[in-house]
Amino acid sequence: MEIAKKRIGIVGGGQLGKMMILEAKRLGLYITVLDPAADCPSSSICDKLIVANLNDLSGYTELSKHADVITYEWENISVPALEKLEKGGHIIYPSVSSLRTIQNKYVQNAALKKAGIPVPKFALVTNTEEIREYGKPENFGYPLMLKTTSGGYDGKGVAPVKTEDDVDDAFHQLGSGIKELMVEEFVDFQKEISVIACRGIKGEKAVYPVAENTHTNTILDTTVVPADISEEASNKAKEIADKVMSVFEGVGTFCTEMFLAKDGEIYVNEVAPRPHNSGHYTIEGCFANQFENHIRAILGLPFGDTGLICPAVMVNLLGESDGKAKLLGLEEAYNDPNVQVHIYGKSESKVGRKMGHYTVVGESAKDTIKRALELKKIVRIIGE
Amino acid sequence: MEIAKKRIGIVGGGQLGKMMILEAKRLGLYITVLDPAADCPSSSICDKLIVANLNDLSGYTELSKHADVITYEWENISVPALEKLEKGGHIIYPSVSSLRTIQNKYVQNAALKKAGIPVPKFALVTNTEEIREYGKPENFGYPLMLKTTSGGYDGKGVAPVKTEDDVDDAFHQLGSGIKELMVEEFVDFQKEISVIACRGIKGEKAVYPVAENTHTNTILDTTVVPADISEEASNKAKEIADKVMSVFEGVGTFCTEMFLAKDGEIYVNEVAPRPHNSGHYTIEGCFANQFENHIRAILGLPFGDTGLICPAVMVNLLGESDGKAKLLGLEEAYNDPNVQVHIYGKSESKVGRKMGHYTVVGESAKDTIKRALELKKIVRIIGE
Repeated sequence: MEIAKKRIGIVGGGQLGKMMILEAKRLGLYITVLDPAADCPSSSICDKLIVANLNDLSGYTELSKHADVITYEWENISVPALEKLEKGGHIIYPSVSSLRTIQNKYVQNAALKKAGIPVPKFALVTNTEEIREYGKPENFGYPLMLKTTSGGYDGKGVAPVKTEDDVDDAFHQLGSGIKELMVEEFVDFQKEISVIACRGIKGEKAVYPVAENTHTNTILDTTVVPADISEEASNKAKEIADKVMSVFEGVGTFCTEMFLAKDGEIYVNEVAPRPHNSGHYTIEGCFANQFENHIRAILGLPFGDTGLICPAVMVNLLGESDGKAKLLGLEEAYNDPNVQVHIYGKSESKVGRKMGHYTVVGESAKDTIKRALELKKIVRIIGE
Repeated sequence: MEIAKKRIGIVGGGQLGKMMILEAKRLGLYITVLDPAADCPSSSICDKLIVANLNDLSGYTELSKHADVITYEWENISVPALEKLEKGGHIIYPSVSSLRTIQNKYVQNAALKKAGIPVPKFALVTNTEEIREYGKPENFGYPLMLKTTSGGYDGKGVAPVKTEDDVDDAFHQLGSGIKELMVEEFVDFQKEISVIACRGIKGEKAVYPVAENTHTNTILDTTVVPADISEEASNKAKEIADKVMSVFEGVGTFCTEMFLAKDGEIYVNEVAPRPHNSGHYTIEGCFANQFENHIRAILGLPFGDTGLICPAVMVNLLGESDGKAKLLGLEEAYNDPNVQVHIYGKSESKVGRKMGHYTVVGESAKDTIKRALELKKIVRIIGE
């Protein structure tokens, strides 16, 4: 197949990589994955798995031998290694320069701000005195967020500072200044929302509907689509997501997480240069899902329809305890014919580890949310 | 994962097996495939591939070691081998007895007839005199169909006998009586239709909408759903498909191909105990597709919704010439955002070989058919 001549390399073999591969395989594509774990979720469906540390150049070099285009499912990877490949003529989407910008939260925010995209106020800090300075009411005030500028995900690398009393603990928690730190103004939000969008090689774009997210302990818990927000807010959020892609000039899928503040303003919280957990609803909710359109983007193919077929609710399945993973309640969940359960194939459950998710669709958003929330007591993953 | 403890074995690793695996992988299941070809379409995404002739007992025995439940994507496989496994306590769905019945077209027709399901008139024949006898106007008359009772697919094993002059040629074409032969009355049909239906372990059923099929040179060319037939005919077809599953007492997916005769009667042409080419539209057209519901059936899980989301048209991509397979027109096809192309991953194109398919969805059936047919000139697979 001519299309199969474009072999794809994916850095990272977690669930996002696995779901990319499931779509790529429909087109008969050859996929090589680079991951440190031999039993990563992508391992059982990729054509070739390279097991190597994601900080080692050697793994990336090996990956490039088996791929005509390289992408990634995860942003905490080696920019120097990818840069070397890019300089050697290898194609990497999204580009290494956009990855470099996004990888550092401070640089990311600065780039967004420069482009006129609203972000919470932010500043680099190196010690507790500076944090206290930003905590003053005439400055950012409390609460404020202390963050490492790189390496964070799922709430890791973030420490909320509710009052001045938390400053020392938060600073200590994030490494006492060994890692680069920044403070961010706390946005008093009414909703956390996100938009998945894709950008093609010729600059063409496809934007998905606005999703409304609920986080528990800083990990995504539930995504509801359409978001229960005004049409004005929805349009604004989509415009921002669209603009974000132009800022980073990337090819591929981008997720823009935003706060809809109580005053109606929208601020960008974070951008991910890849398919995102809050876009899993697109598998059941849209004709072409985020993983498929990501594959189309990096192959230079036009995008599939991103319109919402019907209301959809996605709920993450996090490990409830440590041990050999055991799924509970699948049969009962499937008594509802409009439920799909996705299991990533991680053999070990850990508390809070993303083990799978389920999606519920329906005719009315209200009823769909109700059914999805009821299932939380039923579909569970425990360790035993 | 507890669900992953149910390892699935699939006899046959063609495109139907591949599409089953794509669904099974969403649930993190472990899949072993038995196929004679090391590079079969399923090879790149199954966990384990056993390369062996489908007539050899050894391959089946090996498969059974890696599977808690065995299914098949293809009916021309070894019943004695499967029977031996079934006697040894292995679970095979659909059951070997239903496979045995369905494998022999004469026995299949007899079972359907006995259950009161309308089939064209049929009879075993052993020589040209008997065929001529059935060709007489007071008997079946001409045209009539000469068929091998087993081993046929995609028009192979079928020879139309238009007039008495064709009898000798048709008899010779099908092996001059070495294989068991039957004659079947020709049904003057207005439409060829089919219904995919699934039956669960507890006997519960899920029936998909009626599909309208067009064959070219006895190979499926196009499937349109919903079928452009009366509601009465549609209900009748679905009732027949439902009844067919009870006749065979199988667990899994069954496709009932039917003729809607010009006089309004519906006759069963053929039953396949597996997901079917005419059910590929369910991937885009339904919340739960035929492959997923097949997996649910054999795992004892309740079925996902089989309702039609929107009109869908499936077109097969057959090899146009022999040689290394080359796909043409993908980019142009994807200029329509409501098209999905599926490439099975067969490296060699052969004239008439099923290499892939595409599905077009839309709001109106008429417009969707128009777009799907226009694409036939664009999306093509050639050998080079």
